[in-house]
Amino acid sequence: MTTRLQMSPDLMRELAREVTEILIERSERLPASAVWDGEFQQGASSPLAKEPPEDGGSPAAAIQEAVRDVLSPALRLDHPRCFGFVPSAPTWPGVLADYLVTGFNVNTATWLTAGGSSQLEAVVIDWFRNWFGYPETAGGVLTSGGSAAALNALVAAREAAGHPERATVYMSDQSHSAQVRAARIIGIRPEHLRILPTGADFRMDPDTLATAVAADRAAGCSPIAVCADAASTSTGAIDPLPAIADYCETEGIWLHVDAAHGGALAILPEGAQLLEGVARADSIGIDPHKWLFQPYEVGCLLVKDAPTLSRAFGIHHDILQDSVWGARHPNGADHGLQLSRRDRALKIWLSIRTFGMAALRAAVAQGIDLSNRAADWVASSPTLELLTPASAGIVCFRVNPSGAELDEAELQRINKNVLARVFWDGHAFISSTSLHDTFALRMCVINHTTTWDDVHATLENITRFGMEAAATPHPG
Amino acid sequence: MTTRLQMSPDLMRELAREVTEILIERSERLPASAVWDGEFQQGASSPLAKEPPEDGGSPAAAIQEAVRDVLSPALRLDHPRCFGFVPSAPTWPGVLADYLVTGFNVNTATWLTAGGSSQLEAVVIDWFRNWFGYPETAGGVLTSGGSAAALNALVAAREAAGHPERATVYMSDQSHSAQVRAARIIGIRPEHLRILPTGADFRMDPDTLATAVAADRAAGCSPIAVCADAASTSTGAIDPLPAIADYCETEGIWLHVDAAHGGALAILPEGAQLLEGVARADSIGIDPHKWLFQPYEVGCLLVKDAPTLSRAFGIHHDILQDSVWGARHPNGADHGLQLSRRDRALKIWLSIRTFGMAALRAAVAQGIDLSNRAADWVASSPTLELLTPASAGIVCFRVNPSGAELDEAELQRINKNVLARVFWDGHAFISSTSLHDTFALRMCVINHTTTWDDVHATLENITRFGMEAAATPHPG
Repeated sequence: MTTRLQMSPDLMRELAREVTEILIERSERLPASAVWDGEFQQGASSPLAKEPPEDGGSPAAAIQEAVRDVLSPALRLDHPRCFGFVPSAPTWPGVLADYLVTGFNVNTATWLTAGGSSQLEAVVIDWFRNWFGYPETAGGVLTSGGSAAALNALVAAREAAGHPERATVYMSDQSHSAQVRAARIIGIRPEHLRILPTGADFRMDPDTLATAVAADRAAGCSPIAVCADAASTSTGAIDPLPAIADYCETEGIWLHVDAAHGGALAILPEGAQLLEGVARADSIGIDPHKWLFQPYEVGCLLVKDAPTLSRAFGIHHDILQDSVWGARHPNGADHGLQLSRRDRALKIWLSIRTFGMAALRAAVAQGIDLSNRAADWVASSPTLELLTPASAGIVCFRVNPSGAELDEAELQRINKNVLARVFWDGHAFISSTSLHDTFALRMCVINHTTTWDDVHATLENITRFGMEAAATPHPG
Repeated sequence: MTTRLQMSPDLMRELAREVTEILIERSERLPASAVWDGEFQQGASSPLAKEPPEDGGSPAAAIQEAVRDVLSPALRLDHPRCFGFVPSAPTWPGVLADYLVTGFNVNTATWLTAGGSSQLEAVVIDWFRNWFGYPETAGGVLTSGGSAAALNALVAAREAAGHPERATVYMSDQSHSAQVRAARIIGIRPEHLRILPTGADFRMDPDTLATAVAADRAAGCSPIAVCADAASTSTGAIDPLPAIADYCETEGIWLHVDAAHGGALAILPEGAQLLEGVARADSIGIDPHKWLFQPYEVGCLLVKDAPTLSRAFGIHHDILQDSVWGARHPNGADHGLQLSRRDRALKIWLSIRTFGMAALRAAVAQGIDLSNRAADWVASSPTLELLTPASAGIVCFRVNPSGAELDEAELQRINKNVLARVFWDGHAFISSTSLHDTFALRMCVINHTTTWDDVHATLENITRFGMEAAATPHPG
């Protein structure tokens, strides 16, 4: 008996060549393409809503259909004028590394199943450890992203605290929802999750934290973790890590720093200064698929004391009993929630081996430079209002023509109108956020292919859309 | 300012061609390669333990180094004679789909960021829903694998139960560690995790379950979930789902069925019979990267009542406020722990579009057939002893020459010796498990490229190694 799931080498080669050409052509055309090729579900659903076919068909035709109906209707997060959410612009060696890993179908669950990849993960994690100034006793695990890193961190924190009853977790109102979700997953009830208000600088206030912890302790609750932001996703604000670390050390509370976005700053001397104190955290999350130019998915959780992870996640299992083979070999599955795990280290390694750290630093520095220039341009514009200073590549602003004396409701109407026009226009993409209830436009400028012309043209368009929206009377 | 992270199209093309040739050559050579190219860490660590280079280097040389030092020292899970753990043998369209997804760098966090991929995920989940006989009100989410599926299921179960204090979770002693870990992550304490003993058939006993639940209720605990196996990883045993579903419905306890491995049976009429009752579960986990021939990572969690997922995982976030765009659009991030998410649906879709369901069914049927033949061969061997019947492609057995009257300690010594020889020999790979403390060799025969010759030669080798080990006196 034979099955029919294999292909001739010639057909494999021909299809791979076609995929490669599609990707290279896409890359070449990207600056001239629409950034967002969105569609309402009603328009998109019909061509795809089909039963699985009983018999096969042309793979080349299916690839074309996938490109047209599946992959194209999307936000092009790697477009040089994609400034929404957190852009992700992978390098070609990163893409090829993932292609290799997929073709080898690596499973880094244990050393036994993937010794080379397990070793490489340790090497790459050691690079991160050094960038953050962590001691040699630190360790970590590569994850699907920041959400899994935050989850693993809070599990480790809870287990390190002995899993007390009425456990409470602290974060600011600027913290990412991934941390809220992680707290919910590990069983922190809404009434034990403390969302601390921030002030005008959108940073966690250590006094507010201390007051909340003291009140909880007095009420019989057990604080198990503080989640600080470096940087927060809305504004790029970096929490006062030294003061928070002082406090957490005194009180014996696990400090997790969410550096999913801002962790890339650690590779720059001036960025490392902004992250001062991060090495005092018990854990740090960072996403190489954000500002370290890797394709989805790769996050990293570092913990200051490596064994806290295996104490939290290591579980004996009969069918994995052979994985103990080789004393003290690192088994990835003992360090987080996943058992079967892709190799996520190779893309980081191959990118850095190909381009070198100097090029990576220049690319991160460019994001900082462009966002600074964007903030300066906004600050000097008579039509736009800078709402937060550029930080970690992020700028928040809004349309607010000087002298127009518009009220908040009207400003929100105008800026939502501008955002919708940016969406449908397709030339650039930005997203919005809410800054203590103020509706804000938000640009995140961290793509290594972005130029000042891209940023400038986007700001010009927003200015024009804003003037037009302001000149259009409210329909109500 | 420009950064240096881009490449010319010609170089991109040349490197991609090289990766393709590496993968095709690997695929061609696979049957003649060692299944396991393992190494102790001492031997592997030196070439890789390097600082990140300041300047870049040849990407072609780095790719060669990666293949030699990172990707090759591994268990080749897709080798036709890899019978250890759960093999994973992806099809070429699945690999190419992942290559496409990586190159487009899709993020299916929300409909706004990836409308086409979000839609395709819904289509593929609907295929699964139909295979399992779930109602149209069911839904689901693609995950990194079975561990994440189990975690998401238990969070949904806990939230659906109103997050009671002293929540207890039930599973058999054959359940996968992923479920133990999921329970630990969501905060179930060891003293509230009930590992129910199984009998000689390695299946959960509904009476044992009922006794445990009643005792817990009497003691003030709140049962929130029963995790049943279909099939268990050690032996392929399928728990008595109809009886367990009866009980869980009566008691109002969430039933999760771990079909990570065995879910593929659902596409065969005779397999669907073995899974009778699965459609009465509240949730089902299945891993297409196991027996549906996809590359890592792709798991799937189905829930009978779709909104239970968004109730458990949906969280508002300021910087994602634009994602509400388009009423009732599915946002992947509302259905599980991940926010940034690869497109995991395209590989399933492209494989099935290329080969068709008939070929997929034949491939699953072949695994069942070969494992049945392996069990028959073992049962008729004077040297080997069949420990469990073939089930879901899995056979457990050991070397136990008839008439030798060996005690358990000696049998364990011999079989561990055999296993080590299989590991280092490289011709085939099997792993071991523990069956109620009996050390067992275990073959999982689900690779679509495996032939009877592969299975037969492996059993012949094991027989020979076993005779030699039995003839060698114990060193102690």
